Amino acid sequence: MNREFSQLNPGKRYLMGPGPSDMHQRVYQAMSAPLVGHLDPYFQQVMEETKDLLRYVFQTKNEWTIPISATGSAGMETCFTNLIEPGDEVLICVGGYFGDRMAQMVERHGGKLVRIEGEWGIPFSASQVKQALDNCNASLVGIVHTETSTGVEQPVEDIAKIVHEHGGLLIVDTVASLGGTNIPVDSWEIDICYSGSQKCLSAPPGIAPVTMNERARDRILGRKTPIDSWYLDMGLLMKYWGSERSYHHTAPVSSIYALREAMLLIHEEGLENGFSRHALNYTAFKAGIDAMGLSFFVEEPYRAPMINPILAPEGIDEAKLRGRLLQDYGIEVGGGLGALKGKAFRVGLMGQCSQKDHVMLLLGALEQVLLAEGHQVQASGVSAAAIVYNS
Amino acid sequence: MNREFSQLNPGKRYLMGPGPSDMHQRVYQAMSAPLVGHLDPYFQQVMEETKDLLRYVFQTKNEWTIPISATGSAGMETCFTNLIEPGDEVLICVGGYFGDRMAQMVERHGGKLVRIEGEWGIPFSASQVKQALDNCNASLVGIVHTETSTGVEQPVEDIAKIVHEHGGLLIVDTVASLGGTNIPVDSWEIDICYSGSQKCLSAPPGIAPVTMNERARDRILGRKTPIDSWYLDMGLLMKYWGSERSYHHTAPVSSIYALREAMLLIHEEGLENGFSRHALNYTAFKAGIDAMGLSFFVEEPYRAPMINPILAPEGIDEAKLRGRLLQDYGIEVGGGLGALKGKAFRVGLMGQCSQKDHVMLLLGALEQVLLAEGHQVQASGVSAAAIVYNS
Repeated sequence: MNREFSQLNPGKRYLMGPGPSDMHQRVYQAMSAPLVGHLDPYFQQVMEETKDLLRYVFQTKNEWTIPISATGSAGMETCFTNLIEPGDEVLICVGGYFGDRMAQMVERHGGKLVRIEGEWGIPFSASQVKQALDNCNASLVGIVHTETSTGVEQPVEDIAKIVHEHGGLLIVDTVASLGGTNIPVDSWEIDICYSGSQKCLSAPPGIAPVTMNERARDRILGRKTPIDSWYLDMGLLMKYWGSERSYHHTAPVSSIYALREAMLLIHEEGLENGFSRHALNYTAFKAGIDAMGLSFFVEEPYRAPMINPILAPEGIDEAKLRGRLLQDYGIEVGGGLGALKGKAFRVGLMGQCSQKDHVMLLLGALEQVLLAEGHQVQASGVSAAAIVYNS
Repeated sequence: MNREFSQLNPGKRYLMGPGPSDMHQRVYQAMSAPLVGHLDPYFQQVMEETKDLLRYVFQTKNEWTIPISATGSAGMETCFTNLIEPGDEVLICVGGYFGDRMAQMVERHGGKLVRIEGEWGIPFSASQVKQALDNCNASLVGIVHTETSTGVEQPVEDIAKIVHEHGGLLIVDTVASLGGTNIPVDSWEIDICYSGSQKCLSAPPGIAPVTMNERARDRILGRKTPIDSWYLDMGLLMKYWGSERSYHHTAPVSSIYALREAMLLIHEEGLENGFSRHALNYTAFKAGIDAMGLSFFVEEPYRAPMINPILAPEGIDEAKLRGRLLQDYGIEVGGGLGALKGKAFRVGLMGQCSQKDHVMLLLGALEQVLLAEGHQVQASGVSAAAIVYNS
């Protein structure tokens, strides 16, 4: 091998893109706690605590609430592979990049896809979903609560009602939003919900929290055909994560330690306080962006607090902007995905990154790099944010 | 939530079961290096280094050599879901628990399963495989190089020849053995090979190294039907891990840091030196077990150096024995799986656990707990191992 290896030295980053987000020092420490076996009595205690903390962040009592041993996209695949039997009609509300991914998964798992397209940046209405359901036989509906590609929040509670009136089950993607804004799984009657570890939970990427209610469980256990994934089979997984404790796969112990600690931090702060913090920092950030004369992609009423695409000013290369932020400040923001590629950069204020220091640093850095690229901002974003924080 | 959470405090363990194994301090440190984004230029460098190190441990030049973002069982599923099209005949050589898992996966992914059963504890012969292939149309054959359930090594090189004479491709599971004994993927002409991070590589559980040669790649890219997993689709994965760098899923950055460091330790020691170390520590361990009058489950010529079931002496409850080792010494050994459940305990000398100190501690502890359970050993295992180390 003609390669010299040097010591791992990633350097400091502010992870203010679409995830991963910054991790708290306690999460780093938890991740490097001594490894124990996946059947060790101590780890079984950690598993119980992890399930309880997941129920806390999902605001659910669902027994089937576990961390899948893979990333958020595998969480998505877990839901579709377990719920779809060949030929099942599945309605997907595609409002962005990840809605489209849901549609791809439906087809991979043998479902009959019914697809409604939303305009990027505009949420679906419950009546759109009703109309679609009136015209098909879908028994399963999928929607992304907050698209990391657009930053739009969907009216999931209203949509759940419509889906249930039609006798179906609703799968909701909360990869970007869980822990950052109110998503009460039980009171909104979301049947199946999944997320990722590395966004508003601020744990390392690699784990996908999943929760399913009894109706979803019964549908899975009553399947007539086998699930086409062994690794993501919820019935098998629950034999390990439930009281049987029987071996399925080797749990990623260190990542579970980290996820538990990250959720413990959320529990200590209190979910509601965390939501308020995300809302406040979004408000300060918005004040700054508005003052600078920059534009959000999404209209204000539809915006999620934790991820927002900002349009690059005329004549400014957004990739170059992001390169400067990374190189000069260690700030990562995201590029535009799909329809926004090359047109916008995405700012995440997720979990541990939804902090006053991050907002002020980003606004200041943005002003400097825009100026360096020849774009004079209208007014100081930092000053506008300061007013919000002092009000 | 009616639960009090205390600080994470797993306590010290010697992980001498079927995995995970102990991690080197450098691996703990690497895992908690600052998190960067999965599209960060620094992480792209880490990805290139990781692929090169994987090629080193697999002894291959295969371009398609990547870490799957999930555990070893997902590595197994990656191979079967990518290679099998509905109706393909697949021969599985079932010699233990994980061979049986392969057979389950073949059926889940729509393959037509042809199954040959080996006796637990005895390897297959190339002629058994030839006979099976003469009597079916399998274009894909799966075998586990070293079953963690039995500790038997299979004659993979000979079997690869037979498979190729019949025009098929060979999938080899090296979850337990990669890095602990010689498995030269290219010179043995293994077409598809997967492993796990947490055994002889001594990285945290959660990652599955996979390598595929050009014939496997061509078969995958030439499929007529879509792969029934989106998350494990090698074509999509190679767009992220290859030169395109296009987003697929969020890589588990911290786990990749850890895997890279663990493989760097193997590279620094030298693969061959690591194999010799595993062989020496097995020899000392064997001398100890023999001296104590205990019995291996597997005949000597078939034993792998890194995992071995030891039969519980008559009248001794193996679960109680394991409980004492864990409680009194922090030593984890494994219980018997499948046919060996309740009859044997499994000792792993994998990666960082294949060390003189681990062997001597285990033999001493075993003597003490056997005596406590009323079983007097024939002679000192520690003294017998000492002679091996001094010879």
